[in-house]
Amino acid sequence: MPGPVQSIERAAAILRLLAGSSGRLGVGEIAQSLGLARGTAHGILRTLERVGFVEQDKASGKYQLGAALLHLGTSYLDVNELRSRAINWADALAARSGEAVRIGTLLDGQVLVVHHVFRPDDTLQALDVGSLLPLHATALGKALLAHDANAAACVRGVALEAFTRRTVTDARQLARALAQVRERGWAAEIEELSIGEAAIAAPIRGHGGLVVGAIGVSGAVERICDAQRVPAAKLVGFVRDAARAVSRDLGGSRW
Amino acid sequence: MPGPVQSIERAAAILRLLAGSSGRLGVGEIAQSLGLARGTAHGILRTLERVGFVEQDKASGKYQLGAALLHLGTSYLDVNELRSRAINWADALAARSGEAVRIGTLLDGQVLVVHHVFRPDDTLQALDVGSLLPLHATALGKALLAHDANAAACVRGVALEAFTRRTVTDARQLARALAQVRERGWAAEIEELSIGEAAIAAPIRGHGGLVVGAIGVSGAVERICDAQRVPAAKLVGFVRDAARAVSRDLGGSRW
Repeated sequence: MPGPVQSIERAAAILRLLAGSSGRLGVGEIAQSLGLARGTAHGILRTLERVGFVEQDKASGKYQLGAALLHLGTSYLDVNELRSRAINWADALAARSGEAVRIGTLLDGQVLVVHHVFRPDDTLQALDVGSLLPLHATALGKALLAHDANAAACVRGVALEAFTRRTVTDARQLARALAQVRERGWAAEIEELSIGEAAIAAPIRGHGGLVVGAIGVSGAVERICDAQRVPAAKLVGFVRDAARAVSRDLGGSRW
Repeated sequence: MPGPVQSIERAAAILRLLAGSSGRLGVGEIAQSLGLARGTAHGILRTLERVGFVEQDKASGKYQLGAALLHLGTSYLDVNELRSRAINWADALAARSGEAVRIGTLLDGQVLVVHHVFRPDDTLQALDVGSLLPLHATALGKALLAHDANAAACVRGVALEAFTRRTVTDARQLARALAQVRERGWAAEIEELSIGEAAIAAPIRGHGGLVVGAIGVSGAVERICDAQRVPAAKLVGFVRDAARAVSRDLGGSRW
């Protein structure tokens, strides 16, 4: 049945386009971006508006994402087994390490943050749940890349963006780093995404031992790393303990 | 063009069904619930899976909401003008009142929480963003109901659920309460949703003076109300100030 498939795929493409743009788009811009006839784009947008997935701004006539998506996104989190099994372990990891904890899973060649525990202090922190992080420049991403063939396929042959001068953008250098991640069982990132920040992460395994996500801590480089700019052994131990505990709860590890 | 519209509407119905169920559904259950042929439901589900809106559990073959929805939901929040204009005022209201602050908007006859500031103390609190609250049993909902014809239409002729013995379930009693909300410019709820909890809210107006949302505080009834079980005048003032400030920023009020 090619008909239904195509219109749903086009609707999804419009929603992704709106999520990727930083605001509102007109029907003409949407039609042009996706190579659709204006009437086709308009018909899909009107349907998406009727189901609450997009909203039309009355003043400009432009379209933006709709409120129904927020509830669907929250409902996804409620049924997400990785997140529900990991919440208590993430809290414990934040308490033991004194650092912010994130749990990530693969989405569209990026790391989707499905859970975020603030660093246990009073500083102002913004919730990252639902954000997408780059695979090659985060500890969570490297933990996924090293153990997930689908993730690895996402970065193969793709130009790797440099976020700082320390970001690994050379494919061979990244391959060596990932081999080390597989050997050690954990991944690190030191000022590769943001200056002054570092992170440690380890893979989470689900049924059958497949890697379904990663858990890790991140924070100021002087707290995450020791005097030699090496990830602190104690924090690495905490992160690996947490990853192992979640994996065991998910049936992905026996010990 | 009835074709595209129908398949997108059916896809949206499947996503809502999955969000409403507390977990996973099989293709047979989905087809039956929505009155679709099994093959039709299967075709839509396969497409939704391809775009990341649903995931199929490998062990049971059942479907659940997919990770792409989480990112779309977060992106909705990023472009939501009500939320972005209100964030600073919500923080200030939480600081002044010492209570948790929520901002809500209408979705499908319920209040969708688009922003939530925790009560400024160290107690454990769960983030409510993305949750749906009942219109008739919350201060946010009454503020919307009193000023929004669409919201009022949602509860007309509908059996109003009793959450406590104080929930207003009689249509005439609710109409009187809403007339009072319009007269005063603010709404309250005292143990109508949860025993021991109370809330105060005021409407937020957007372009042209239309009510686009509501902002309010909620907490223990002995803190929100005075000795006579009347919402504390000081808190009412703080909530109204915040609603007015957001309305002014949204261009919905001049003073």
